[in-house]
Amino acid sequence: MEARIAIAPSPGAGAAYDRPNSPGLDLLRLAVEEAVSGGGGVNVPLAEADGLVWLIPGEPELLRSTLDAHPRIGWVQFPWAGVERFTASGVLDRPVVFSCAKGSFAGQVGEHALTLMLACLRNLARQARTPRWCPVDPRSLHGRRVTILGGGGIAGELIRLLRPFECRIRVIRRRAESIEGAEETLPPGALPTVLPETDILVLALALTPETTHVIGATELALLPAHAVVVNVARGAHIRTDALVEALRAGTISAAGLDVTDPEPLPEGHPLWADPRVLITSHCADSAEYVTRMFCERLERNVRNLRAGLPLEGVVDPAAGY
Amino acid sequence: MEARIAIAPSPGAGAAYDRPNSPGLDLLRLAVEEAVSGGGGVNVPLAEADGLVWLIPGEPELLRSTLDAHPRIGWVQFPWAGVERFTASGVLDRPVVFSCAKGSFAGQVGEHALTLMLACLRNLARQARTPRWCPVDPRSLHGRRVTILGGGGIAGELIRLLRPFECRIRVIRRRAESIEGAEETLPPGALPTVLPETDILVLALALTPETTHVIGATELALLPAHAVVVNVARGAHIRTDALVEALRAGTISAAGLDVTDPEPLPEGHPLWADPRVLITSHCADSAEYVTRMFCERLERNVRNLRAGLPLEGVVDPAAGY
Repeated sequence: MEARIAIAPSPGAGAAYDRPNSPGLDLLRLAVEEAVSGGGGVNVPLAEADGLVWLIPGEPELLRSTLDAHPRIGWVQFPWAGVERFTASGVLDRPVVFSCAKGSFAGQVGEHALTLMLACLRNLARQARTPRWCPVDPRSLHGRRVTILGGGGIAGELIRLLRPFECRIRVIRRRAESIEGAEETLPPGALPTVLPETDILVLALALTPETTHVIGATELALLPAHAVVVNVARGAHIRTDALVEALRAGTISAAGLDVTDPEPLPEGHPLWADPRVLITSHCADSAEYVTRMFCERLERNVRNLRAGLPLEGVVDPAAGY
Repeated sequence: MEARIAIAPSPGAGAAYDRPNSPGLDLLRLAVEEAVSGGGGVNVPLAEADGLVWLIPGEPELLRSTLDAHPRIGWVQFPWAGVERFTASGVLDRPVVFSCAKGSFAGQVGEHALTLMLACLRNLARQARTPRWCPVDPRSLHGRRVTILGGGGIAGELIRLLRPFECRIRVIRRRAESIEGAEETLPPGALPTVLPETDILVLALALTPETTHVIGATELALLPAHAVVVNVARGAHIRTDALVEALRAGTISAAGLDVTDPEPLPEGHPLWADPRVLITSHCADSAEYVTRMFCERLERNVRNLRAGLPLEGVVDPAAGY
C-alpha cells in the first residue's frame, strides 16, 4: 500500500502557532518530512493525501473542516501524548484512524516524576529559594509507599527507575491487567482505600472527563499529612484550589507539579510562593527528545501503514486517549 | 571480654556544642547509651573506661588530653563518616583503635547525590527561583558518562541507584580493587584523562591532604562545557573560587553542592545567586537516620569488641580516613 502523507501546517505557516521556548513548528515539519520519507511514504499536498500528520495544537475545528474537505484521508497522526482537546471536541468520532504519541515520551517523563519526588522529599524548592545556609531534615525515598494513577508508559518507566529504592508501589488504572513491578494493580474505585496508605501520589494518567479533577479536597484529605503529590500528567487532574487549601491547612506536606490548571499558572498565584511547592513549566521532556521520539514513531507508523500492520498509539475516542 | 564504655560529653554537657537544626548532643547521648547496653557493654565514667564514644565535634586537642589522662582507653568510636580534623591534628597517631561511621550513612548520601544530579540536569534551581511560567529544556540522566571520585559506600550506593539509568560509570579511587557496577575503576592519576569524557562529576571521597582541592581551575577546564559537578563529600575538595570562575566563564554548566568551603557558605557569596547552582546545607542525611545508623554500628562494634572480632569502620591514620 502506498502512503501519501500531508503535513499540517503547510510549509512556512507554522510560525503563526509557535510559542516562546518551543522548537518551532516549521523546524518540526522538516523532521516530520524526513520521517515520512524514512518510512517509505511520500509527502504530498492535502488534496492528494491518504494520511495526515497534524502538528497544529489546540485547533480541533480546523482539523474537522480539513477532514470534511478531504474525505480521502483515512489516518491522522498527532505529535502529542495527550489529545484531550481533540477527543473532547468530538472530531475523532468519524471512521478515520487517529494515532498519537502516547507512550513515546514516557522515558523522560518518568525521570521527571522521580526528580520531583526526590526534590519534594528533600525540600529542594525551599533550599533553592533561600540564599543562605539553611539545613533541613531530608526524607528518603527508600521503601516509601508510592501510588501511581495511570498504568501507561510513564508508570512503567517510573516503576523501572524506582526499583533500587525498594518502594511499595500500587498502580490504579482502568484496565485490569496488572503492571510489572507494582505490588498491586487496582481499579479507580480503590482510590479512597489506597490514599490513606500513600506516602507519594503520582499522577501519570490521560485526561478524560472521568479523570478530570480526580484529586480534589476529598482525596487530598484522605492522604497522610506527610504525603507528597506529584503531577506529570495534566493540570486538570487536580482541583487547584483544593491543592492550595490542602497545603495551607497542612493536609499534605509538598507538591511537585510539571503541569498546572490553569496553564501557564498566572503570576501571583499562591502556588508560586509556597516553599513546599516546586513547579516546572511543563518541561519534563526536552524538545530534541520529543521531536526524535515522535519522528521515530511516525516513521514506524508510515512503514506499518504501507505493510498493512497495526499502527502504534491508536487513539480510542470512547476512552478519550 | 568486658566492654566498659564512657561517653563524651558527659550528661548535660552536650548543650554547649549544639548547633541550630542539629538533634542535640544530649539527645544523641541517650541513644548512644542504649546502643552500648544493647551491644552488651556497660556505660561507665571515663576513669573506668576501656572504650570511649567521642561525640564532641571538632575538638581534637580535648580528645588528646582526655586520652593522655586515661591511658587505659584502647578504643575510640566517632559518630561521623569523615574525621579529617582529628586525623589532621595527629591525635590518632597513638596505639589506640579509632573507628568512625564511614559507610554508615551512604544510603541517604547516595540518594542525595542522585537528587542533585537530576536537579542540575533539569534546571530545578532556576525554576524554583522563578515565580512564573518558564519552560526550560531539561537534560536526561539516561546513558550519561558519570565519573565518581571515591570508591567507598557512597559510590556503591549511587551506582546501585543509577542502574536503571544505564549510565557509563567510572570510579576513581586510591585502591586498585574494582567497584561493582562501574565500567572502569581507575587510579587518581587517571583524572586528567577521564575529565574530558565526563558529563557528570560526583565527589564522594574522604578529605585528606591529598584530596584537598582535588578539583581546581585545571580540572574544571578539562570538563566539557555541558558538565555538571556534584559534591556530597567535603567542601574543600573543590577550590571554591575556581568553581565560581568556571561557572562565570561557562567552563561547566551547573553544580549541585551539599557541602561548601567555607561552610556554612556566607550570605552574599556569588554561588548563592547563580541560577545554575543548587546548594543544600550539608543535609543529605536526616538526623533520625544518622542517629539510627550510627547507633546500629556502635552496638555491633561493642558486640565485636566483647567477642574479640574486628571492628567496623576502623580509621587508618596514615590514609586519613
